[in-house]
Amino acid sequence: MITHISPAGSMDLLSQLEVERLKNTAAGGLYQLYRNCTLAVLNSGSHTDNSKELLEQYLSFDVNVVRRERGIKLELTNAPEHAFVDGEIIKGIQEHLFSVLRDIVYVNMHLADSQRLNLTNSTHITNLVFGILRNAGTLIPGIEPNLVVCWGGHSINPVEYQYTREVGSELGLRELNICTGCGPGAMEGPMKGAAIGHAKQRYYDHRYLGLTEPSIIAAEPPNPIVNELVIMPDIEKRLEAFVRIAHGIIIFPGGPGTAEELLYILGIMMHPENADQPLPIILTGPKESERYFHSIDTFIRDTLGEQACKYYQIVIDDPAMAARLVKGSMPAVREHRKANGDAYSYNWSLKIEPEFQLPFDPTHENMASLDLNLNQRPENLAANLRQAFSGIVAGNVKAEGIREIERKGPFIIDGDRELMKKMDQLLGDFVQQQRMKLPGSEYVPCYKIANH
Amino acid sequence: MITHISPAGSMDLLSQLEVERLKNTAAGGLYQLYRNCTLAVLNSGSHTDNSKELLEQYLSFDVNVVRRERGIKLELTNAPEHAFVDGEIIKGIQEHLFSVLRDIVYVNMHLADSQRLNLTNSTHITNLVFGILRNAGTLIPGIEPNLVVCWGGHSINPVEYQYTREVGSELGLRELNICTGCGPGAMEGPMKGAAIGHAKQRYYDHRYLGLTEPSIIAAEPPNPIVNELVIMPDIEKRLEAFVRIAHGIIIFPGGPGTAEELLYILGIMMHPENADQPLPIILTGPKESERYFHSIDTFIRDTLGEQACKYYQIVIDDPAMAARLVKGSMPAVREHRKANGDAYSYNWSLKIEPEFQLPFDPTHENMASLDLNLNQRPENLAANLRQAFSGIVAGNVKAEGIREIERKGPFIIDGDRELMKKMDQLLGDFVQQQRMKLPGSEYVPCYKIANH
Amino acid sequence: MITHISPAGSMDLLSQLEVERLKNTAAGGLYQLYRNCTLAVLNSGSHTDNSKELLEQYLSFDVNVVRRERGIKLELTNAPEHAFVDGEIIKGIQEHLFSVLRDIVYVNMHLADSQRLNLTNSTHITNLVFGILRNAGTLIPGIEPNLVVCWGGHSINPVEYQYTREVGSELGLRELNICTGCGPGAMEGPMKGAAIGHAKQRYYDHRYLGLTEPSIIAAEPPNPIVNELVIMPDIEKRLEAFVRIAHGIIIFPGGPGTAEELLYILGIMMHPENADQPLPIILTGPKESERYFHSIDTFIRDTLGEQACKYYQIVIDDPAMAARLVKGSMPAVREHRKANGDAYSYNWSLKIEPEFQLPFDPTHENMASLDLNLNQRPENLAANLRQAFSGIVAGNVKAEGIREIERKGPFIIDGDRELMKKMDQLLGDFVQQQRMKLPGSEYVPCYKIANH
Amino acid sequence: MITHISPAGSMDLLSQLEVERLKNTAAGGLYQLYRNCTLAVLNSGSHTDNSKELLEQYLSFDVNVVRRERGIKLELTNAPEHAFVDGEIIKGIQEHLFSVLRDIVYVNMHLADSQRLNLTNSTHITNLVFGILRNAGTLIPGIEPNLVVCWGGHSINPVEYQYTREVGSELGLRELNICTGCGPGAMEGPMKGAAIGHAKQRYYDHRYLGLTEPSIIAAEPPNPIVNELVIMPDIEKRLEAFVRIAHGIIIFPGGPGTAEELLYILGIMMHPENADQPLPIILTGPKESERYFHSIDTFIRDTLGEQACKYYQIVIDDPAMAARLVKGSMPAVREHRKANGDAYSYNWSLKIEPEFQLPFDPTHENMASLDLNLNQRPENLAANLRQAFSGIVAGNVKAEGIREIERKGPFIIDGDRELMKKMDQLLGDFVQQQRMKLPGSEYVPCYKIANH
Repeated sequence: MITHISPAGSMDLLSQLEVERLKNTAAGGLYQLYRNCTLAVLNSGSHTDNSKELLEQYLSFDVNVVRRERGIKLELTNAPEHAFVDGEIIKGIQEHLFSVLRDIVYVNMHLADSQRLNLTNSTHITNLVFGILRNAGTLIPGIEPNLVVCWGGHSINPVEYQYTREVGSELGLRELNICTGCGPGAMEGPMKGAAIGHAKQRYYDHRYLGLTEPSIIAAEPPNPIVNELVIMPDIEKRLEAFVRIAHGIIIFPGGPGTAEELLYILGIMMHPENADQPLPIILTGPKESERYFHSIDTFIRDTLGEQACKYYQIVIDDPAMAARLVKGSMPAVREHRKANGDAYSYNWSLKIEPEFQLPFDPTHENMASLDLNLNQRPENLAANLRQAFSGIVAGNVKAEGIREIERKGPFIIDGDRELMKKMDQLLGDFVQQQRMKLPGSEYVPCYKIANH
Repeated sequence: MITHISPAGSMDLLSQLEVERLKNTAAGGLYQLYRNCTLAVLNSGSHTDNSKELLEQYLSFDVNVVRRERGIKLELTNAPEHAFVDGEIIKGIQEHLFSVLRDIVYVNMHLADSQRLNLTNSTHITNLVFGILRNAGTLIPGIEPNLVVCWGGHSINPVEYQYTREVGSELGLRELNICTGCGPGAMEGPMKGAAIGHAKQRYYDHRYLGLTEPSIIAAEPPNPIVNELVIMPDIEKRLEAFVRIAHGIIIFPGGPGTAEELLYILGIMMHPENADQPLPIILTGPKESERYFHSIDTFIRDTLGEQACKYYQIVIDDPAMAARLVKGSMPAVREHRKANGDAYSYNWSLKIEPEFQLPFDPTHENMASLDLNLNQRPENLAANLRQAFSGIVAGNVKAEGIREIERKGPFIIDGDRELMKKMDQLLGDFVQQQRMKLPGSEYVPCYKIANH
Repeated sequence: MITHISPAGSMDLLSQLEVERLKNTAAGGLYQLYRNCTLAVLNSGSHTDNSKELLEQYLSFDVNVVRRERGIKLELTNAPEHAFVDGEIIKGIQEHLFSVLRDIVYVNMHLADSQRLNLTNSTHITNLVFGILRNAGTLIPGIEPNLVVCWGGHSINPVEYQYTREVGSELGLRELNICTGCGPGAMEGPMKGAAIGHAKQRYYDHRYLGLTEPSIIAAEPPNPIVNELVIMPDIEKRLEAFVRIAHGIIIFPGGPGTAEELLYILGIMMHPENADQPLPIILTGPKESERYFHSIDTFIRDTLGEQACKYYQIVIDDPAMAARLVKGSMPAVREHRKANGDAYSYNWSLKIEPEFQLPFDPTHENMASLDLNLNQRPENLAANLRQAFSGIVAGNVKAEGIREIERKGPFIIDGDRELMKKMDQLLGDFVQQQRMKLPGSEYVPCYKIANH
Repeated sequence: MITHISPAGSMDLLSQLEVERLKNTAAGGLYQLYRNCTLAVLNSGSHTDNSKELLEQYLSFDVNVVRRERGIKLELTNAPEHAFVDGEIIKGIQEHLFSVLRDIVYVNMHLADSQRLNLTNSTHITNLVFGILRNAGTLIPGIEPNLVVCWGGHSINPVEYQYTREVGSELGLRELNICTGCGPGAMEGPMKGAAIGHAKQRYYDHRYLGLTEPSIIAAEPPNPIVNELVIMPDIEKRLEAFVRIAHGIIIFPGGPGTAEELLYILGIMMHPENADQPLPIILTGPKESERYFHSIDTFIRDTLGEQACKYYQIVIDDPAMAARLVKGSMPAVREHRKANGDAYSYNWSLKIEPEFQLPFDPTHENMASLDLNLNQRPENLAANLRQAFSGIVAGNVKAEGIREIERKGPFIIDGDRELMKKMDQLLGDFVQQQRMKLPGSEYVPCYKIANH
């Protein structure tokens, strides 16, 4: 079955050369990337977190960009049915389709063709992240700080999910906007809650910004509340985008992906040059999740040290308080940007070391050779632990990662004996609390902590 | 504590004379009406359905209209706290405050001063209802039929509530707008659901229209999703407004108020001059409520006859189907209006007899003397039954009605023996299913079916 | 030829009863008034200032309001061709047609039906003027003072016309809005100029407000730049509207109508209660018109006394200065309104005596019995002189006035001998400078100064 | 004197690297280009057409881009005073400043860095022109064909200027938009006229698009009516942009620049592959200019042959007819695009040969060696004649060209004897009619036709 989709939102016009390069037959292999992201977006709201399964379910799906007198159109073959209502595509999904197109074209044509860009240079990476966000219309000048990044698991229990909605509602009532990784669970709840809060406040500049990247989008397709979608090129640039656009961060319960995010931001905040950055970081959940935060807090304390804990606050069972703390920090964020001549929409002055920027490829070899000793500066340990958790996410839900695990067995993670014990326990908790994968399947670990 | 509220939405400017007449000290007694409606709106989202209790709880509340260089302001004394977030009034409630002001001024000054208006003349009443809705900006010309009136109980169980949300979501996905009586329960669920459906469709012309009237507003304060609020002068004009702006009607489970509404619309649809009116009427609920609809259906069949049942369809446990049926009727509604030169926004050609228009005052005497015999034309019986149920609503939740019952004991309802048995059973079901009042209090009936 | 016109701008919906009362056949004679105003609007841009001629030229013109499913439509029979481009009505004229409908309905139905309104009561008149402007959407709350009323002749020479454009352009560059009597000449030039100034400033809240009334509209049909049109019921309410919405006044060269306006505002400003009103009044023209202003200034000085001259400033040949003076007064206007709690959009606190409010009917008898002696308070003399000039305008260009003059000969104006000499001279100047009527016809005076 | 200018319109955000490259001190020499274009825009409305004079008049002018928390700001030193009103920059000029920034950054950073772009390849050039226009927001998808390119002299007499306004007004009344080269004279008149026509039609999607390029912008600074400004990299890409976005072309009287444009479009239209292109081309002027069009028509006939004349129509003294002819062609343009799947906003299917695309550098040597023989295909002759006139424009008004002429004397133009005679006569007419330069200076020819 073939459907034609007109543009909505961004990217109405492509040049002849751009259309050529997106074709199935074009050199350069862009088509496959583009097709898979498109397919992921069409699965918005579906209940699977296994990229591989998703892709294998729609082998006959095909997308073709055609030029028309009123702009361009997408020609979809055998698209998933649930993207449509009575035969018409859902408008939110339609917009996402063209966000995908916009970012694929910009990153893989405009940026990739540049002979000046050096992707091992920290400044260039930061400018590239800026460029992608600007091209996507994400950086809106002149707006006072109000964007809250919410992190947390895609697989959380109903009590936790309801709690994320309530926090979202309290954020919305305070006219704060939401940015998440744009999948289900803790990435969806705050947006739905905020939508109700914003409606009560007649707040029409509502933003539900989803940041994703090609290897995770199929496992965590954007929920349709997302009204701005950006496809960053890889996980590290996505993380950098999160922290440079955040005016505050809220962390809900989650699994290894959430741990990765927490380690990432703590590793950055601990950098001496970031000492005066006023970014509020709130860990929050219902009272039933109190023990979870205790484990995380202990793990951070044990690995990165006491001083790492001063960067965040834990709020248990008080959505209004969580929202009030973030809202209350906005004037300080604003003043800091003003004093430093820094943009409200992009935190240029945040120092991020290359070890947090350069892509980590979670092969068995790279996972095995991570330096997980305690004899290193805590920022470095944070960077390495971040990579370890990143690899586990890949092994759990990313198509390429799952294939690797199927072929070669679990990743081996090795390091300091004490540290390994703590990691084993934390990961074990995640397994037991069903934070690794969506409930319904039995979880087979993709990792193995080396025996000592 | 005194708060000043600036205008939002409508009614930015009042003349000197209008401000005078709203003052506490002005002749004409308008102040009390205005104050009570204002107080009701400030209780948006509160969990009581007892007008009397509400009014008695805020005896020191006061409102004062003051003129300012940028328009007018409201000066509130001792306003309920839950209308505010961190000391700022919720914008949706702010808008409602000025909708109240707009309608009170229009109805009680502009219309009441007219020396031409004859409120016993059917045509004049219909023109007056039109005038109020037009002044409120409710009648938007040029819009294709898309407004669905949803009726149902303010006190429904969680399964039913969830169902109303799902129907709302399916209506929203089909870009239909919602009008309800604007309280909690089945008046809120469809709006919340539609808000999510509209968000997915990026449908920004969303309307969540609440129609209320001064005697019910305190018992069913507008939920804050309502983005258009109109205060009609009494229950009969509110009912006429509902049916003249509806392009389709969905009826969820409910109590006597819902029965009143169903009888009202059936009595009208059975009028021979309305034979070709293409208004879709859908009764729908979750499968757990199937028995409820069976009782209602039987009661209608037994009282108004078989032919009354052809005006509605019952849909059990299928939100998408309910929405699809309404959506599917829109072209017929449109064609009928076009063919008759009738407005899309106001159904002038619907014939409504004076017995459905003239205000019914639910005194003990009027209740006792209702003609509830089966030997009358079914439209007439529908009109009289409508009044009986209307009286029970008043005795249950309206301040004046509750006071009357306290003073004189329950209403006596008398009539045909068979009919009385059926009514007793239907009302008994309502009591048992907790449809009379919000759960938490024991229900003491405000009526008594006469013994035979 | 019959054309159907859909609504644009205001007044989309009429009730059945309202449509009935507008019909040619309805009692009350509203139709003729409505038809003539409609015809006048369709003559926008035509080059005649003789109402009678205009009306007689289109005897077969007819207008009929019909209700349609998308609102209402106007059915025009034999409408003037120049209102159309390639068979389509010009949008600006289309909007004006519905402004006429809006005001005719509001004034002659809603206000006229009110049993409270007392049109001999000063407060009631002021509230009525407010009510008409509010209903027309003219009073926009929350906007800082920026509305400049420009008065001046409909018949001015090309140098003066170009000058009014330049002043308009300078006003527009300073983001000031324009209100005039909405005909040609000095009522059009400032609007055209401001349109260019606004375009340069990308100022999109531009307002070109035309205030007219039924007896003058045919002689001075609104130019199509006018984007807000209000039909006040008579000349006195139009004048009151002008001065209550003005934040500043600019007076260009003109004839008796302009003299009427200048006397009106001076008479009001001289009232002791208006002593602290900060309204800027600028008389301005090109250097070629210097002598004209000298005559006017002398006439004011000689009749109202030296103190009358302190309310205005004369600026010769300096458009930027005229605009800068008005702009520079806006903060004082703002502060005064704020300090008095008075609306920015309507100057409630300006004291206007009944002698400036009550309609003056320019019959031969009334004109002959005007009290034009110097032995009276200057405000009273200003009021009486205002009426004298008003009568001359009627005799020059209004249909009813022209007919009266045809039937009974010129008005006789009598009074103090010295004053009569000055009036004769001023009027003689107007004749000589072709300010009485548009050039092309020989002017036959409609007045005669009594011989002494 | 230093002024700070905030962004308006486009280009709110620049990356750190982009800001670096715009600095006076940066390598690459971008600053001078950027500064000069900025200065030109600030001279909007000035009355000189000599780029060199203009630049020399403001030697101390300086511009600096600074990053601020709300985006970026421009820091101007010693900016021309007439860009300001009472110390505030005129908003239209403010927008143009940021259009300059946008295009300079896009062309000289984003495009110039691309390692794929081949500027000798015809397809690449066409895609580049598209890319610049798209980045500028000029190509708005979904809009029906309505853009009229108006060409004509910057130095025309008052009668001609008034005529261009009237044509503009008639175009505006028909809701057509205007694109010109954005200087004074025939580039300004149609925009001013259309602004009035659009105002009468309440047409708010009005576009007054100015296309310019760095070497001409100082001689023909954008008038402030221009509400979209695009700086193309050179004259050839500007010409290609004109013809690919035009849905119709109107040519007013003008000098060598206008001749260049006419030859350019005729040379393209005569290409066999463009045989079915339905582009309307209207040459029009007041009756006083009839002889001018006769000369042009004869010159075309004599050089390119009879068949060249079928591509245009000459309309004398009938503004409504000129507008009606263009408007009447829009359906054919629309149908052609639809039938060919070509964009409404960009005419991809128009065949343009490289000889019309590759930049022509008007050195004395290049001018002398132009092939101006009659023994070549008319398209080729058109291309070569286009270059000859282009060189004369450079010698007349461009800074670089004027300097060359000062140093080396006039260009020598040589070729077929008959042709040379005709050229000499045409150019002589231009001189005599004051079409070479703005009146006020004596014209010293920058060319010399070789003697035979």
